[in-house]
Amino acid sequence: MRVPLLNCDMGESFGNWSLGLDDQAMPFVDCANIACGFHASDPDVMRRTVALAVANGVRVGAHPGYPDLTGFGRRSLACSPQEVENLMLYQIGALEAICRAEGTRVSYIKPHGALYNDMARDHDLLRAAMRAVASYDRELPLLVMATANPEPVRALAAEMGISLWFETFADRAYDAEGHLVSRRQPGAVHHDRRVIVEQAAALARGDALVASDGSALHLPADTLCVHGDNAESIAAVQAIREAFQQLAAGEAR
Amino acid sequence: MRVPLLNCDMGESFGNWSLGLDDQAMPFVDCANIACGFHASDPDVMRRTVALAVANGVRVGAHPGYPDLTGFGRRSLACSPQEVENLMLYQIGALEAICRAEGTRVSYIKPHGALYNDMARDHDLLRAAMRAVASYDRELPLLVMATANPEPVRALAAEMGISLWFETFADRAYDAEGHLVSRRQPGAVHHDRRVIVEQAAALARGDALVASDGSALHLPADTLCVHGDNAESIAAVQAIREAFQQLAAGEAR
Amino acid sequence: MRVPLLNCDMGESFGNWSLGLDDQAMPFVDCANIACGFHASDPDVMRRTVALAVANGVRVGAHPGYPDLTGFGRRSLACSPQEVENLMLYQIGALEAICRAEGTRVSYIKPHGALYNDMARDHDLLRAAMRAVASYDRELPLLVMATANPEPVRALAAEMGISLWFETFADRAYDAEGHLVSRRQPGAVHHDRRVIVEQAAALARGDALVASDGSALHLPADTLCVHGDNAESIAAVQAIREAFQQLAAGEAR
Amino acid sequence: MRVPLLNCDMGESFGNWSLGLDDQAMPFVDCANIACGFHASDPDVMRRTVALAVANGVRVGAHPGYPDLTGFGRRSLACSPQEVENLMLYQIGALEAICRAEGTRVSYIKPHGALYNDMARDHDLLRAAMRAVASYDRELPLLVMATANPEPVRALAAEMGISLWFETFADRAYDAEGHLVSRRQPGAVHHDRRVIVEQAAALARGDALVASDGSALHLPADTLCVHGDNAESIAAVQAIREAFQQLAAGEAR
Repeated sequence: MRVPLLNCDMGESFGNWSLGLDDQAMPFVDCANIACGFHASDPDVMRRTVALAVANGVRVGAHPGYPDLTGFGRRSLACSPQEVENLMLYQIGALEAICRAEGTRVSYIKPHGALYNDMARDHDLLRAAMRAVASYDRELPLLVMATANPEPVRALAAEMGISLWFETFADRAYDAEGHLVSRRQPGAVHHDRRVIVEQAAALARGDALVASDGSALHLPADTLCVHGDNAESIAAVQAIREAFQQLAAGEAR
Repeated sequence: MRVPLLNCDMGESFGNWSLGLDDQAMPFVDCANIACGFHASDPDVMRRTVALAVANGVRVGAHPGYPDLTGFGRRSLACSPQEVENLMLYQIGALEAICRAEGTRVSYIKPHGALYNDMARDHDLLRAAMRAVASYDRELPLLVMATANPEPVRALAAEMGISLWFETFADRAYDAEGHLVSRRQPGAVHHDRRVIVEQAAALARGDALVASDGSALHLPADTLCVHGDNAESIAAVQAIREAFQQLAAGEAR
Repeated sequence: MRVPLLNCDMGESFGNWSLGLDDQAMPFVDCANIACGFHASDPDVMRRTVALAVANGVRVGAHPGYPDLTGFGRRSLACSPQEVENLMLYQIGALEAICRAEGTRVSYIKPHGALYNDMARDHDLLRAAMRAVASYDRELPLLVMATANPEPVRALAAEMGISLWFETFADRAYDAEGHLVSRRQPGAVHHDRRVIVEQAAALARGDALVASDGSALHLPADTLCVHGDNAESIAAVQAIREAFQQLAAGEAR
Repeated sequence: MRVPLLNCDMGESFGNWSLGLDDQAMPFVDCANIACGFHASDPDVMRRTVALAVANGVRVGAHPGYPDLTGFGRRSLACSPQEVENLMLYQIGALEAICRAEGTRVSYIKPHGALYNDMARDHDLLRAAMRAVASYDRELPLLVMATANPEPVRALAAEMGISLWFETFADRAYDAEGHLVSRRQPGAVHHDRRVIVEQAAALARGDALVASDGSALHLPADTLCVHGDNAESIAAVQAIREAFQQLAAGEAR
């Protein structure tokens, strides 16, 4: 059993605007995906967020997005693969410099929002993201959405010489192919904390989930995305963390 | 004699807009100050400009500016020292990542426009810029304006543990303190190429310039700023380059 | 007695980021100063905020600022008078179009933050702001900071053919010249609601305030700036509103 | 015969960057589509461009685009219809205020680049654009791409209570449905000035064009898009203008 690393979007404030309970979520996660100024954050927010991660012994990941502050990087922007490669490099490097000033390093790359989703749909964009990582530092894992059939993406990563972390969600329903059920469907988002913790534990144990059509779904789960938006989501992170500690303790016995 | 390095602002295009004859100037300079996206440039322009520098064996310098695309970084923005430190780190890192993808590195830091001028006036901002360089990589020289009395700035740099390159101009008149004569004054800018080349050669030989009040002015001249804006400025760069080669050849004989 | 109009900054959210309790403050104010996208707000926030003002019968004012989202328009930016004139026109017009779609109009102009402060210091910028208003619609009042000596600004407005609203504050201490005591000084900001309400009432009655040096201070008070940031400031707005209603009722009797 | 109005994109400079030969093109066109700051232009460029249009007796049209300066508004951005409506209102109003300061008015609306193309594909976005125009000023025509079957778009405009100007191109090949042949196809763009002038004249006379499959194509042509990018395109505009004057003179006889 390899317990998934808990990753959480952080540093999503911007200028005078605050967003997210970073200081409350930070103690419970392994990895902080820090926005890099294109869809959220700014150099000052980045600096404070990296310092908070360092103080909590949390790994810093670059969380690059489309250049769309108004839309929070959630609106697809028709960038060319070369543009995606370059805007990822730019944002990764910007965060790396802030990390260096705080005595740490960028440890992985997780594209944000519409960029993350577009990469999952369009292999030209995925290759572009992989080229950015490969030319920056091929030791850094790239986070991609887990699906029931990870082999094509694994093959692509092998070809580009980079490693992947497959990312899963504990609070979302999956369909039989391992895609997230659209938020427009009923039951797409789990709100019951016990259901969330159980899905997290199943992913950690390597057990199958039950897909929306009732079939068994096996997902690779290097990491699990958690949220620090509000008190409820912080409580869920804590509960998942405790469940993982119990699993690990059971394992160790 | 130490011939000053020729540095030139490059990569000042932005999106669909072109500015500067980078490909014509690049073969004649030592150092390309590449804009980092806050006052000019974007990830794609940066990538192309770094590639051009690499192809010409030219060192890449980060050219960070205030976040003011509309004003081209030429309007002073009342940032705090901490904000200046962080926006410099951000931009240096962004360029570094692009450099890494092109097989090179950032070799020095030259703040741009109003930021450069504000640092020369305000030691809190200068210290902030120095902290950015020191915490990023204290091997990288920071370019600062040469004056007749460089000691206070040298002392500050020594205190912060960084090195400086004093920058001079061949096409601008200086006052007795070694400050540039304001462009609003007559005679502030030299247009005669022979005058420009002679001022460059004097700086290279370590000779005194004649200040605007007729006094002799000694300036430290690690580097000389040249321009790639138009055919005339390119011709001046070429003429300075040839003059420096003759000086070096005379020296070598 | 002319009871000052209560004006409040509104529409300061931006994209995914929320700021201010606009829906709680709106019922108690006369005038909503709506940010226009340069320092805060965006077309969608502006639309929602104008609709909220209309629903509450509140007048809409344009609240133009420097183009500095990261700094919330609070950092001075060295714009030329012509640039200030044009960026004000741009923002006023943008809000006007949103107003038109919601069946209302821009009723006055209040520059924001550093722009407001810079205008108070620099008559070239003040003239530029006045030119913007005059060339857009000279019926619209321009809000300016009240001082003990409003005559020079009144004369300037008369020369430009525009009208002014002098703005006062109930929660800030004034010096003998009628300038706000710097926030860095002790006692600069009133936190006691009774003190705030009493200062508002004094301004409404045309009574003198007590300046920081103990002298009597008469201020013109066409309007009073209130805040909708948090529950405490909303409570203060309500209390001022009630005090003004009592004053008006006493007057009517 | 109704000679199409010549419209031309103008005001596409931005800050320190110049683009387009506006002063050379302006004397030969009827309508200047002026960028509004989201994909190009800024308040100062807008002011100068409106003044140039006024000096040449040219009508000003708002040319709103997606908020994407780096991509010049040519990259599709997945905005909701409500977002499109609001960003159009914002930009139209911003230009209107500048117009007012120069003694003119916005006379029509032409969405730019990817927004223009997205509207042609997606009737929800087209309705949103129409709502923006209808709620701003239903007297202002909205420019839309002419096709062989304009009836559905005409019906939509009638339903929304606005008027349309169908726009055609003299330098582009059309397919049988009246869509522009993709620039990736050979023969998509006409470079021979005689071919361009003849296509313009055919549109003006109401004659059929020859579509790419050889069929006859009738297009409504309220306006014709011309370009002011370079000397060659200016020469084409002049030639079209002369051809139209001869047509009008022949008509008059």
